[in-house]
Order: sequence, then structure tokens, then C-alpha cells
Amino acid sequence: MNVKSLVTGLALTVASATCFAQQATPAIIEDFKPSELNQPYQDYPQVNSQGYARFKIIAPTADSVRVSLGLGGRGGTLLTQQADSSWMGTTEGPMDEGFHYYNVRIDGGKFNDPGTLNFYGSTRWESGIEIPAHDKDFYALKEVPHGLVSQVLFPSPSTKSIKRALVYTPPGYGKDLKQRYPVLYLQHGWGEDETAWSTQGHANLIMDNLIASGKIKPFIIVMTYGMTNGIRMGGARRPATPAPNAPAGSPPPPNPMTAVAEAFQVVLLDELIPYIDANFLTLANQPNRAMAGLSMGGMETKTITLNKPDVFSHFGLLSGGTYKPEDITDKSKVKLIFLSCGSKERPEGILTATTELKNAGFNAVSYISEGTAHEFLTWRRGLYEMAPLLFKK
Amino acid sequence: MNVKSLVTGLALTVASATCFAQQATPAIIEDFKPSELNQPYQDYPQVNSQGYARFKIIAPTADSVRVSLGLGGRGGTLLTQQADSSWMGTTEGPMDEGFHYYNVRIDGGKFNDPGTLNFYGSTRWESGIEIPAHDKDFYALKEVPHGLVSQVLFPSPSTKSIKRALVYTPPGYGKDLKQRYPVLYLQHGWGEDETAWSTQGHANLIMDNLIASGKIKPFIIVMTYGMTNGIRMGGARRPATPAPNAPAGSPPPPNPMTAVAEAFQVVLLDELIPYIDANFLTLANQPNRAMAGLSMGGMETKTITLNKPDVFSHFGLLSGGTYKPEDITDKSKVKLIFLSCGSKERPEGILTATTELKNAGFNAVSYISEGTAHEFLTWRRGLYEMAPLLFKK
Repeated sequence: MNVKSLVTGLALTVASATCFAQQATPAIIEDFKPSELNQPYQDYPQVNSQGYARFKIIAPTADSVRVSLGLGGRGGTLLTQQADSSWMGTTEGPMDEGFHYYNVRIDGGKFNDPGTLNFYGSTRWESGIEIPAHDKDFYALKEVPHGLVSQVLFPSPSTKSIKRALVYTPPGYGKDLKQRYPVLYLQHGWGEDETAWSTQGHANLIMDNLIASGKIKPFIIVMTYGMTNGIRMGGARRPATPAPNAPAGSPPPPNPMTAVAEAFQVVLLDELIPYIDANFLTLANQPNRAMAGLSMGGMETKTITLNKPDVFSHFGLLSGGTYKPEDITDKSKVKLIFLSCGSKERPEGILTATTELKNAGFNAVSYISEGTAHEFLTWRRGLYEMAPLLFKK
Repeated sequence: MNVKSLVTGLALTVASATCFAQQATPAIIEDFKPSELNQPYQDYPQVNSQGYARFKIIAPTADSVRVSLGLGGRGGTLLTQQADSSWMGTTEGPMDEGFHYYNVRIDGGKFNDPGTLNFYGSTRWESGIEIPAHDKDFYALKEVPHGLVSQVLFPSPSTKSIKRALVYTPPGYGKDLKQRYPVLYLQHGWGEDETAWSTQGHANLIMDNLIASGKIKPFIIVMTYGMTNGIRMGGARRPATPAPNAPAGSPPPPNPMTAVAEAFQVVLLDELIPYIDANFLTLANQPNRAMAGLSMGGMETKTITLNKPDVFSHFGLLSGGTYKPEDITDKSKVKLIFLSCGSKERPEGILTATTELKNAGFNAVSYISEGTAHEFLTWRRGLYEMAPLLFKK
């Protein structure tokens, strides 16, 4: 019995939702274990074998404690005060497999759960919880040779700053200076940063495991911060709009996403790529350079790969839109278009676009992550599916 | 006028301390700026030019909000609710220069300030604030060549796990496979982890700046987690004590610190060092290997360097104790003993020990960080003073 389908369309209060869950869902199995993303020595939050999450917050004299996670759109999970004065609560249904950001509302303020590690998302360091996925083996930390994830500090004259990138280099990298590698530039989503793909995404472990199993030839992954202009959509710091005293007929404020991609294009193409090619053992040419991104990073990928067809040959949009055949002026330069999303993200657009691209003669591949939404398990799986398709020629 | 000396010995309530500060301290200069460690877009906490810190927490219906930072031992800084329902407060005096961990008590629970980045200390991810130091230039991010900080995942059979180390490699590392480097193994303090030295300590920037200025020959720094056995002193998870039914005459429970160092010694010597020597361009011998640590990491350094005189030649204890000449059996193997602490940490012991070591013929050097206590500015300065003394021969 699927809790989500049962409750669709019902306007439930939190109280009645709780009640409903108690009546209509199978009994909650009491095999809760600490989430694997907890801080050391922390017993909560916990997850059970059905995917329920249980939270415990210490705030003895608080008036209300609420966790932002829970079944869609009903304000998350309200915790109730226990006899020992702690606040506890369990999601009213199982959560999707994989990683979820969340935060805790305490007396009207937004805080993190002291029990969990923090992950940068939504332009803040958030709490995170992991519902173990049935296919988690592909990103598990195993006894295989491991590559490095290295912090690079590179000069960025366009932003008058020194910026950070994280670079995955495969096992054995650097032992033979004659061995050079293709490079994937891999972007995070809105509100995230350069830590997202290796921390939430386990990109390095996905690569280590794929390489150990012989399924891919090794390549480098470069991850950097893509919100170059400090945009904070939905928040206070949008890109500059025309001055209030601008003459009539001034152009309208730019599309925020276009502004993000164009500011980032300068950092990526004029600053980061030359730095990486000068300091790492790269195959520094278009056939050996790919760009992909999730969500906003996919939109950046689309904008930049179309703007600069001589830079990248392999494109990946993970929950990040589609290409149309007519977007691309020189088909011969494009070796792969990979489009993916979760099955809960309206995958029809991706399937249709892939068919159109194939019909137009492109090497287009789609992948739909079963049972996941706009979250990181979708993108871990997307990277796992995309990586073997890169740099085949 | 020094607030701390004025209030010494007075048993002040928080209310009277606040009152006192208002009467007796110079006026607070209203030039507060966001702390450099704030999360993106966050205006609070703030720091002024005198070193006062001002906090703002949103929790409209909370009963009490208190920040753990403040002048010694009086429970930190109590915030008061403002007309807009936010909670605000300013430390009752200037804080020491440098980095400080803190947390926020809200209605009896311990949380982090949503305004700041988090730093692992006290076995939890804590809030952090930086009071700009007058000498901060030596660890500033500058337009100089930058080395990498790379995450290494290495097998640890003794703990049945795969462990993490962070490795600083200097600019240009790896471009010439014939160029090999000495290695400093550098340990964090109690409750911290392998991220502390590069994040709170800016060890990589200190090295980049020293190398750029020609003050040192480049070397590698390896940082790993030193609380191998999961000890949590003062908490619930101490090392195993003899079973309750152990026969009379069983040895007493081990000294917790000795147990930490001995468990860590296995990981460091049998697992990490061989991995580093196999995978990095190291000079893999005792004359080119140093060990140093701060606080608990210093105690580990002392234990391990004395246990294994053939592994390390240069020793550094940063707020981490002293050596006595009679501790060391073969003087010829020890090339440097560096002892340091903050001037607020009773430096007499370090000065006396250094004199004794010198009198016994050791190359012993002491350094006292002026105006700092058992905090990270002391250790940033300690590393900066120690680095040029390493691997001179």
C-alpha cells in the first residue's frame, strides 16, 4: 500500500495526517538504526528498513520543534515532547531512497539537527539524512584502489578572487607523466557548491568502483562553484537590475539563470580550464572534454556547451533540461548527449527530446532513475550511467 | 584597560557582568562587520575593530538564547529579544584574536549558529568565528602559487575500515617524478579531526606563503584522524575497561590518552605511512620525516616519537606538553624538538623544558604566541615558526 497515492488530493492537517498514517499504513517496523550521515556518537536521526526516519531533538523548554522532512507539502514532521523533555517524531510514511537535505524549525527559527553532518544546499549548510538505497553498492566505499579528491585554488581575475575547485584524479594518476586523461567538468545544482558532487554525490567512489570493475577508462572530474555572480534566487541578492533612473527602453533585467551561466562561463573557460590544463595531466582538447551538471548545473551546461562548441564534445544534463536538435549548429562536434532525471520528475520531456535527437542523428542517451525525484540518488545514478559513455572515441 | 584583569576574582552574575561591562569598558565602536567565517549571504555574527563579537539569532518564540562565547567562565553571552523578535547580544569584552569555536543554547538545547560555517571540534561540528589578527597576513589567501590539499582514502586493517587523510602537496608537486619531498605528519587536538589543520589552521596557506617567500624548502604535510579508538573523554564512549567479572589483579583500565596514542600508532606507522610512501613522492626515511601535533596531537606525537625513534627525526609539540632529556634514549636520532604554546597557557613549562633540552645537547626551540590561549591562532603561529626549522639537514 502506497501512502503517497492514498493521500493524494486530501487536504490533511498535520494532526489528521499523523492519525491517517497510523490507521492506514502498515505497522512501522521497530528496527531503526542511526543514519549513516550522523555526526560521531550521535544516535539520532534514525532510519528503519522501510525508509521511515525518526528524529530526536533536545530543547527542553522549546514551544515547538518541526523537521522539514516528511511527505510532500504538508510542512514536514512535527515532533512531540516526550516524558524526558526531548522532542521526537517519525515521518508519517517511508521516504524515497537516497539522500535528503533538511532542517529543523525550533520556535520559529531555522537550525540544523545537531545529530547529523551538514551539507551545502539551498545556499546554506543543511542537515542531511540517508535512506539506504537497494542499489547503494555502486557508490559504496570499498576495498578498491581509490583516487584523490584534491582542493585546487585558482586565480579568477574576472571575479577579482581566488576560487576553489575540487578535482578527482583516478588511482595511479601521476605515476607516469606520459599518461594523460580526459576531463569531465561536473556542476552542482542551485544553492549547492563544489563540495556537492563528491560529498552528497559520492562521485569519487562511483568512479573508483567503475574503474575497479573495468567498466570505464579513467578520467578526471573537475567540480567548482557555479553560482559565480552570487545569485540567490528567491532571496535578497538577485543580479543587478537596471538602475531606477535608467532611460526608458533600457533592456529588461536579464533572466537570472542566463546571468548565472554567462558569469560562470568566464570563470570556467577563461580561468579554470586553462589552470587545470596547465597543472594536471589532461588531454587538453575538445574531443577529451565533457561538461555535465545537475539541475541548475545542467542549465549552465546547456548554455555554455551551445555558446562554445569548440570546448566540449560530451554533454550531460541531469535533471537539468534538454537539447533540441536545432539548438546545435555543428552536429559533427557533439559526441554524446546524455539526458536523465528521476521517474518522479516528469521524465516524458527527456524521453521525447532523446528520441528527437536520435532521429536527427545525434548520439543521444536517456536514463530515468526509478522511484526517485529531484534529489541526489537520481544524480548518483545518472553519473554512474553516463560515465561509461564518455570519451569512447 | 583590560576587562579580564578588572573582573578577575569577582563572582558576577550574567546580569551584573553585563552592567559592569557597560560601566567600566571603553565605548564599543560601532564598526561591526560580518565575520569572515559566515555562511554565504549571512550578516551575523559580526566582529568590530576592538574584537567584540555580536550575535543575532532568529527564534521568535524561544524563551532563552545564549551563545557559548564570552569572557571566561561566566556562561557566555546571553542574547536579548529585540522589537523585531530576533535575539541579539554582544560579548561583554573584546575576544582574543583568531579563531573560536562556539555554539548556541536555545531553550536548553545545543545548536549551531545558522549564520556561520561549521568546524569539527569537541567531537561535534561547531560554529566558528574569526577575530581578525594583527598578523593574519602569514595565513592569508594570496596571489601566490598554491599547493593542493588532497583527500586520500587508505586501508586500515587494524580498525577494519578505510580511513581518510588530507595531504598537502606544495606547488609544482608531481611535475618532476625525480623530485621527492620530506613529510610532516601533523595531528589535530582532542575532539577535532583531519580537517582541522587545513580548515581552522590554514596549514596549506601558511605553507604556500612560506614557500612563495623563499623561507622554507617545500615539504608534504599529512593530516589524519587521531582518535582512532573512538575515545570521547568526558563523554559516554571511553575505551573499554576490564570486564566487570575480570579476575582480581587484572590491570587497571589504561590511561585514556595512552590508549588513544597506542591505537593511533598502529594506524599511523603500519598503515598510513606505508601508504603515503607508496603513493606520494616522499623521501621515505627517518631524517626526512617529522611528527607534530597540537594539544592531544602533541601528546600522541610525544608517545609515538619516543616509542619509535627510527621513524621520525623532527618533533613538534604545540600546546601539547614537553620532552625531558631523559625521555630520549638516542640523542643522535633527534634533529629538532619544537615546543610552543600561547602566552595565556602557562608557557613556563615549555621554556624550562627547552632550556633543559638545550643543556642536554638537543636542538630544542621554543615559541610562545603572544596574547593567545589554547586556540587555533596559537597553532597557526606555531606551524609558521616551526616549518622553517624542519628538514634543515
